[in-house]
Amino acid sequence: MHVTIDEAERAIVAATNKAKEIKTRMCIAIVDSGGQLKRFTRMDGAWLGSIDISIKKAKTACSFGMNSGQIGELSQPGGPLYGIEHSNNGLITFPGGIPIIDSEGVLIGAIGVSGSSVENDQLVAQAGAEVISIADVPDDPWRT
Amino acid sequence: MHVTIDEAERAIVAATNKAKEIKTRMCIAIVDSGGQLKRFTRMDGAWLGSIDISIKKAKTACSFGMNSGQIGELSQPGGPLYGIEHSNNGLITFPGGIPIIDSEGVLIGAIGVSGSSVENDQLVAQAGAEVISIADVPDDPWRT
Amino acid sequence: MHVTIDEAERAIVAATNKAKEIKTRMCIAIVDSGGQLKRFTRMDGAWLGSIDISIKKAKTACSFGMNSGQIGELSQPGGPLYGIEHSNNGLITFPGGIPIIDSEGVLIGAIGVSGSSVENDQLVAQAGAEVISIADVPDDPWRT
Amino acid sequence: MHVTIDEAERAIVAATNKAKEIKTRMCIAIVDSGGQLKRFTRMDGAWLGSIDISIKKAKTACSFGMNSGQIGELSQPGGPLYGIEHSNNGLITFPGGIPIIDSEGVLIGAIGVSGSSVENDQLVAQAGAEVISIADVPDDPWRT
Repeated sequence: MHVTIDEAERAIVAATNKAKEIKTRMCIAIVDSGGQLKRFTRMDGAWLGSIDISIKKAKTACSFGMNSGQIGELSQPGGPLYGIEHSNNGLITFPGGIPIIDSEGVLIGAIGVSGSSVENDQLVAQAGAEVISIADVPDDPWRT
Repeated sequence: MHVTIDEAERAIVAATNKAKEIKTRMCIAIVDSGGQLKRFTRMDGAWLGSIDISIKKAKTACSFGMNSGQIGELSQPGGPLYGIEHSNNGLITFPGGIPIIDSEGVLIGAIGVSGSSVENDQLVAQAGAEVISIADVPDDPWRT
Repeated sequence: MHVTIDEAERAIVAATNKAKEIKTRMCIAIVDSGGQLKRFTRMDGAWLGSIDISIKKAKTACSFGMNSGQIGELSQPGGPLYGIEHSNNGLITFPGGIPIIDSEGVLIGAIGVSGSSVENDQLVAQAGAEVISIADVPDDPWRT
Repeated sequence: MHVTIDEAERAIVAATNKAKEIKTRMCIAIVDSGGQLKRFTRMDGAWLGSIDISIKKAKTACSFGMNSGQIGELSQPGGPLYGIEHSNNGLITFPGGIPIIDSEGVLIGAIGVSGSSVENDQLVAQAGAEVISIADVPDDPWRT
C-alpha cells in the first residue's frame, strides 16, 4: 500500500501551514512505502541543503519504520548502530522524519522535514503526518 | 531570480491537468534557476523510473538554458556533444525538459516531465511552463 | 502489493532449473514492486559482472512496467529515449528483465537474469516469471 | 576458494530458521571470498533499510577477515580506525557480519545479517555461518 497523491498533498499543506505558523521555511518530502519520492515542496527562502536532508529523513523513517531521531539515539559513538548512516546512500538520523501508517496499521510512506532546528523540523513533520496517519507506529508496520 | 513556490505550484497544477486530459500519469519536477528542486509531484500510478528522469530533465534544461531535447539532437553518435549525458551526475537529453523564463527574459528555473511518450512528456511540460514563462528562451537567459 | 519470499524463491528455482537445462550459469534477481531486492542467487561459475546487471535488469523492468529489452529498442541512437540508461543510477536496457504481474493485473515485482547471451537471459527470466506471473503486462500495472 | 551456492543456501536456511525461532525478520546476505554477492534473501516484512546493511556487513567481514563488530570497536572516536567506514563505498562496522572459513582455514566468504537488534543480528549470522564454517577465524585466513 502506498500513500496517494491526495494524501501526500494534504500532508504537505498541513506541514506548510505549521511551518508558517512558527515562522520557519522548510523543505518537506513525502515518500511512498517503498521509499520513493511522491511529493516535495521547498518553501521560498528555505535552505538549499535541506532538499536532500528532507528526502533522506523521509527515506530513513520509511526504511526502518521508526522516527529518524530514534535511529540517531542508537547510532551515537559507542552505541549499537554507530555508523549506520553510511548505508543506503546516506541516512539522516536526527529528528524530522516520521513514518505514515494507515488505519489498518500498515506503513504507507513517510514524511521528512528540514529547514530549522530539529525541534521545529519534528514539529512540522508531525503536523503533516497526523492528517493522514494514525498516532503510533505499530510493532509490525509492514505487510507483504 | 528564482521561481517562487506559488509559480511552481501553478505550473504543477497546469501540467497535471494536461496530463489528465491526455490520459497519462506523469512525474513533474520544477527546479529553480540554480537547478535545485523546488516542487515535485508523482501522479498516482506513474512509473517509478520517471521520478529521477523528470528531475534530470528539469536540471538539464536549466543547466544549459535550452530544451532537453535540443541537447539530445547534439549528443547523438558523431554529434558535437556526444557523451554529454555523462556530466553533471547524469543528464537526460530527450524531450520533456523546458527552461522557465520570466517577463524580463531571465531564466528563473525549469520544468521536467516524464511518464509517457516523449511527445506527451513535452506537451505536458509546455502546459506547465506556459503559465509562468514567456514563450521563447532568449539568447542570453542568464543574469548574474 | 509485493512479491512474497515464497513466490520469489519459486521463481528463482524455476529459473535456475531452466538455466541448468540450457547449460548456462546465471545471476538471478527478484525485486519487489518498489524495485527493492527481495531474493538473489548467483550460480556457481556465473560471471561476477552479471551480479549488478541482473539486479539492474529487474529494477529497470519494475521501474517502467515493461521488459528491459523494450526500453532498449527505444533508446538506440536517434531513438526517442536515447540516453535513458543514465537515469536511476544506471538502467540495463537489453533483454533479461521482466515484470511480475499478479492475477489481478497488479505489478508485484520483477525478475532480472544475466550470465549468457541475451536470448538465454530472456529465456531463463521467462521461466522464472511464468511460475508466479500472469502472461502479459496490462496497460495499467500499478495500483496505489 | 569460494563458498558454493549449495553452501550459501544451507547458511541462508539455517539463518532464516534461527530468525523465525527468535521471532525476527531479517535480510541475510552471503558473499564469496572476493566480497561479491552470492545469495541474498529478505524475509517478508523485513526492513527495507536492512537490504544494504546486510550486504555491507558481509562485505566488511570479508574485506578484513574479522567480524564486522570488531572493526566497530576500533573505529570509535579516538580509536585507531576512526572513519574507516568511509572506505570501500561504505562499511558497516557493528555486529552481524561474520567471515566464513573452510576446514582448511581458508576464507571462502562471509555472511551479513540485518533486521533487529545487533545482538539478534549477530545470533542469526552465527547460526548461518556455523553450518558451513569452522569455529574461529585463523590469524591468516587468506590464501592467494
